[in-house]
Amino acid sequence: MTDVAALTPTEARARFRAGLRVPTSGWSAGWTQANLLAVPRDLAYDFLLFAQRNPAPCPILDVTEPGEVSSLRFAGDLRTDLPAYRIYEHGELVAEVDDVTDRWRDDMVAFLIGCSFTFEAALLEAGVPVRHLEQGRNVPMFRTSVACRPAGSLSGPLVVSMRPMPASQVATAVRVTSRYPAVHGAPVHIGSPAELGITDLDAPDFGDPVEVRPGEVPVFWACGVTPQAAVMQSRPALAIGHAPGHMAITDIRESEHLVP
Amino acid sequence: MTDVAALTPTEARARFRAGLRVPTSGWSAGWTQANLLAVPRDLAYDFLLFAQRNPAPCPILDVTEPGEVSSLRFAGDLRTDLPAYRIYEHGELVAEVDDVTDRWRDDMVAFLIGCSFTFEAALLEAGVPVRHLEQGRNVPMFRTSVACRPAGSLSGPLVVSMRPMPASQVATAVRVTSRYPAVHGAPVHIGSPAELGITDLDAPDFGDPVEVRPGEVPVFWACGVTPQAAVMQSRPALAIGHAPGHMAITDIRESEHLVP
Repeated sequence: MTDVAALTPTEARARFRAGLRVPTSGWSAGWTQANLLAVPRDLAYDFLLFAQRNPAPCPILDVTEPGEVSSLRFAGDLRTDLPAYRIYEHGELVAEVDDVTDRWRDDMVAFLIGCSFTFEAALLEAGVPVRHLEQGRNVPMFRTSVACRPAGSLSGPLVVSMRPMPASQVATAVRVTSRYPAVHGAPVHIGSPAELGITDLDAPDFGDPVEVRPGEVPVFWACGVTPQAAVMQSRPALAIGHAPGHMAITDIRESEHLVP
Repeated sequence: MTDVAALTPTEARARFRAGLRVPTSGWSAGWTQANLLAVPRDLAYDFLLFAQRNPAPCPILDVTEPGEVSSLRFAGDLRTDLPAYRIYEHGELVAEVDDVTDRWRDDMVAFLIGCSFTFEAALLEAGVPVRHLEQGRNVPMFRTSVACRPAGSLSGPLVVSMRPMPASQVATAVRVTSRYPAVHGAPVHIGSPAELGITDLDAPDFGDPVEVRPGEVPVFWACGVTPQAAVMQSRPALAIGHAPGHMAITDIRESEHLVP
């Protein structure tokens, strides 16, 4: 079995380009994973401003020139090198595919947005369990009742990822992830899922459910699927995102984001 | 003599609105100071992307809706409540005034950008000298030979502010300011001004020269005058900035920016 943690970003992207369709948690340790949102140029200002106003869910790592399919920080092809994509028309999910070459317009601007998978190696190193990795599943993600700050034509709810852990390790998880603001940073909410409007931890809106053991606390991080929730609510003519959990593996070292 | 450090943002802004025209270093301790760049809506995407690509000199604190003159984070009037402004037409500085009400178009978008004056209280608290405060001058700022990453129609050089200090205190200054990435964060360059293309520390491009004592090291931080240097190079039809050193005093607590 391949040690996916040991693959370079180039090696990982080649597998996804060849058709492999799996969540990327645990892949390419030490390299930054990213959410994708690509929109036509006429929506780009609204989205960049939405990201600026909602930096916890939308930390921007890079922005392409209109029509370009790679960037300084992602040397692959953004249309083929992610494991899977979601295509939205007027806010409706119309397709989940592993290649969006035929839908990439000449004026598409792609935004790469930090992903919390990036700090999971640091959590493990600190002894904090990462349950979806243990269980070989995608991370559970939830649409919340918290509204993002709108920008122009875009508005929508905050989406969060959830990792359960023993109460004794929550402070460590906060301390470790606080050092990575460019990939969502510290948790936005600890415990009390009902306060986020989450009624059933076993029924995530995206990804897979994971086991929450007795006495464990659910810890919630802002999630880069938030832009897709804004697309669903705001209904622009066209938007392309990654399939949740199926990320862009960038050429940015994870250590580049560390703050003291 | 008024203790300007003790004034609230509202009190400080009232004095500037009434016509007081002084650098704001040392004013309203504990509150965030900000650089201003206001441009017509059709240039707003290029500038927001320029800021995203150059986060050290251009950490965005807030962006107004087109035509608005205040924001969530600046409860005053952006056209009157800074001590002084600079107006650029096609890249030329055409006026330095204390009120820009008559030049504020209905489609102006204002960007508030973090300013390093914000962390000077923390430097003093840590025992690091702030020479321009000691000498009652504006901070010295230099246009460098380092190019910013361009965005659309905007390109230009990095501008830095300089604070000299004993070699034994440089590490402390790095440690303290690293905690404030939203107001330029850690120094971008320490010592060796020639490597930045700076030939004479006594001849800053903006602000005032300060004394550099024998054995002291010049420490350089990215500066929020960088957008104005981009305006000068890129020559958009209209842009309005603050006069260097004469900042917007915002309603954002300095502590809000602290990272671990």
